[in-house]
Amino acid sequence: MVSVMATPMPKKLFHLLVVNLTLTEIVLSGNVLIWPTDGSHWLNIKIILEELNLRNHNVTVLASSATLFINSHPDSPVNFEVIPVSYKKGTIDSLIEHMIMLWIDHRPTPLTLWTFYKELGKLLDTFFRINTQICDGVLSNATLMARLQKAGFDVLLADPVTICGDLVALKLGIPFMYTLRFSPASTVERHCGKLPAPASYVPAALSELTDQMTFGERVKNTISYPLQDYIFQSYWGEWNSYYSKILGRPTTLCETMGKAEIWLIRTYWDFEFPRPYLPNFEFVGGLHCKPAKPLPKVLWRYTGKRPATLGANTRLYEWIPQNDLLGHPKAKAFITHGGTNGIYEAIYHGVPMVGVPMFADQPDNIAHMKAKGAAVEVNINTMTSADLLNALKTVINEPSYKENAMRLSRIHHDQPVKPLDRAVFWIEFVMRHKGAKHLRPAAHDLTWYQYHSLDVIGFLLACVATVIFLVTTCCLFSYRKFGKTGKKKKRE
Amino acid sequence: MVSVMATPMPKKLFHLLVVNLTLTEIVLSGNVLIWPTDGSHWLNIKIILEELNLRNHNVTVLASSATLFINSHPDSPVNFEVIPVSYKKGTIDSLIEHMIMLWIDHRPTPLTLWTFYKELGKLLDTFFRINTQICDGVLSNATLMARLQKAGFDVLLADPVTICGDLVALKLGIPFMYTLRFSPASTVERHCGKLPAPASYVPAALSELTDQMTFGERVKNTISYPLQDYIFQSYWGEWNSYYSKILGRPTTLCETMGKAEIWLIRTYWDFEFPRPYLPNFEFVGGLHCKPAKPLPKVLWRYTGKRPATLGANTRLYEWIPQNDLLGHPKAKAFITHGGTNGIYEAIYHGVPMVGVPMFADQPDNIAHMKAKGAAVEVNINTMTSADLLNALKTVINEPSYKENAMRLSRIHHDQPVKPLDRAVFWIEFVMRHKGAKHLRPAAHDLTWYQYHSLDVIGFLLACVATVIFLVTTCCLFSYRKFGKTGKKKKRE
Repeated sequence: MVSVMATPMPKKLFHLLVVNLTLTEIVLSGNVLIWPTDGSHWLNIKIILEELNLRNHNVTVLASSATLFINSHPDSPVNFEVIPVSYKKGTIDSLIEHMIMLWIDHRPTPLTLWTFYKELGKLLDTFFRINTQICDGVLSNATLMARLQKAGFDVLLADPVTICGDLVALKLGIPFMYTLRFSPASTVERHCGKLPAPASYVPAALSELTDQMTFGERVKNTISYPLQDYIFQSYWGEWNSYYSKILGRPTTLCETMGKAEIWLIRTYWDFEFPRPYLPNFEFVGGLHCKPAKPLPKVLWRYTGKRPATLGANTRLYEWIPQNDLLGHPKAKAFITHGGTNGIYEAIYHGVPMVGVPMFADQPDNIAHMKAKGAAVEVNINTMTSADLLNALKTVINEPSYKENAMRLSRIHHDQPVKPLDRAVFWIEFVMRHKGAKHLRPAAHDLTWYQYHSLDVIGFLLACVATVIFLVTTCCLFSYRKFGKTGKKKKRE
Repeated sequence: MVSVMATPMPKKLFHLLVVNLTLTEIVLSGNVLIWPTDGSHWLNIKIILEELNLRNHNVTVLASSATLFINSHPDSPVNFEVIPVSYKKGTIDSLIEHMIMLWIDHRPTPLTLWTFYKELGKLLDTFFRINTQICDGVLSNATLMARLQKAGFDVLLADPVTICGDLVALKLGIPFMYTLRFSPASTVERHCGKLPAPASYVPAALSELTDQMTFGERVKNTISYPLQDYIFQSYWGEWNSYYSKILGRPTTLCETMGKAEIWLIRTYWDFEFPRPYLPNFEFVGGLHCKPAKPLPKVLWRYTGKRPATLGANTRLYEWIPQNDLLGHPKAKAFITHGGTNGIYEAIYHGVPMVGVPMFADQPDNIAHMKAKGAAVEVNINTMTSADLLNALKTVINEPSYKENAMRLSRIHHDQPVKPLDRAVFWIEFVMRHKGAKHLRPAAHDLTWYQYHSLDVIGFLLACVATVIFLVTTCCLFSYRKFGKTGKKKKRE
């Protein structure tokens, strides 16, 4: 039982539309294999597999032995297949820490861009070594592969930030689909998914730009795309060899990723700037959000030593349910590092934000919320307590921030089908139809120069040049021949 | 009460998903103004307004006094506002006849292309004169405009094949949206709606091409776009003046059309080749289809004199319900002129087709069905009865045609929300939120050269040229200065 509630009109209450979507499942269930990514990515995918479980599907998660977060309640019916790896949890922790420090020290600006991408490239190298251990741990483990084969999976759902899920699916002969927030410069979505991204109004990821750009910003954006692509090329080069080796024929990472049936993107038009997309891209942002449950009266999540100055009315918790907190009627503002999950909880409950972004998509996410008038940003490197206080006062006291947050919330809640139901619908669609080939653009069958019609343009230019050459030659010839004859005649 | 039924799996019946969408409407209803187009276009839009009526909205249709089809049952609650025009029904009849004959005589091929578009241009001229009469009939009629203003409409739904609906909406100060199948070469969708259409895999309308093109076909396609645009430019020129006059400021038809909140497109991915689109484009093809009702045993729609050779088991009807006929279990094949409405009824019921296309989108529609393996085409100009019989035998006896028609049918029926419900959802969304600006791409705010980043590319090329010039100059200068010094030194 699923409900999509339309929010009442600001002025004219002519509509209160309640859509109830009843899902009746009959007969047997499907068999879903999950290829997750650790950290906050897992929190998002976990919601999907819990829903799949609720709808009677069997879910199996492939997770490395050094996972940070990937687990479930002991009474959860989700199966886990552990992939033994030689690195430890500390390796992942330190990789994430390096990633954060890279951003804090070299947050990409026109001046730091080159250093930033060079350092990012180094991190990607480390990531490649860790990731190939996970891949090998599955693909080279004949017993595990045989067990997976025997289990008869209907679909594999992969977070492509950890590479290889697609390879596992191909080896098992089953369709696969992706769930992701973004790749830098949308390189993966653009090159492997064939998602168009006109540089004139679609800001490159990590650029912190919006869809309203000045000339200078459009120059920056136009440069951002190939620059980020370039960084990825070297990373991809290693994967291309790996993929070719595993599949036993010359191929590329991108060609393989292009075989994904559906791309579930973790945003929606409440967050995204409107942009072109493809029928096999489904925007399911905020699928983890739900109505808030009641809370104790005062709280503060804090794991350090209790500060001496703390008032008697403040209770400290090691962990608090952020969604319930944001849904509390007294939640006036949200100080956030700008992760997509948190941003969506704020959108869902219509809470304005103070963004203190740290790394990855966080600066971009806050840029989106700023552009939509629902957030103020504070720089983590330079901020003082006064800056933070002023930012808080601004989003709380200037009514436009609350109004815009509420507007985004109304957009989020007023969809024909809820994001989680759409995500699950398309997973089930791929299981029912053994794929979704009818949504896959023919762009995948073209080379890059064919895709951009460069061969056609070249041919047409050659035709024009030939015509000009022939006409010019004829004219010159005629002029020489008949011009002379004319002169001769005149003389005669 | 709306139901989306998932079709059972071909081999493994692990799922039978029934989605029930219950729509509960509370409080007041909305007020919808319709700007229709005559002919088969009306049949499609009529379904939407009947549904709007069922959901308690007031619907008013603006129709000319010379309409062919635009009417409703006497007991229908739809209101009609008649626009007095001086031309007669015969004028429209003859215009459509001319249109059909143009296609039959000059069906666009590389040889007839120029004649075809020249003749089409002439027809568009006639259409302009008829259309401006309708526009003037509303916009210059102060009493009618005052009455419409007073009625307090929440949204205007326009079929943009009859131009001016947008102008009426702007004059009334209400949001508007479109419902359309296509415009030639998608000129309107591309230029006014900013819909991307890469010529490498998105076939131009009227080209009869598919998404799988040879080099030669891609050349044809790449030429088709600007050629069709060119024909439209002259037609648009007249409308630009008209629009500027009415709005009292320099504007264009396209700029005004770009203000549409949502574009409801009368196709879906069962019919379309996968292509890029925008969040304010919603593909609601087949919204008029419904389960078939039982039929009498034998039928034939025929309005002429009863042929003497007719068998006793054939009954003639002036009109038969095509949808019910196609849904009859004994319907083996569908001989169709290839109109979108009919094609969708065949897709809905999974019936293979023999296409005898005549004009407008019909040759394209049949090309789509041929490419998807659900139809055979017969040329209306050259066909013999043997050709028709062979085509019928092919689609009936070769199982692939039925299988492909059933595959398209399964795709059609397996959507998260039915097309009619999606269409109505977005109409109601625009009423609830007074628009859908969050879906409108920023591409609308750019000039054509900004959109294609030509200014940025020009600037970057100029930078590169400057750097090359400076480096070359420096090198030359150094060579002259230090080269000579070197020589001097050598001499010394």
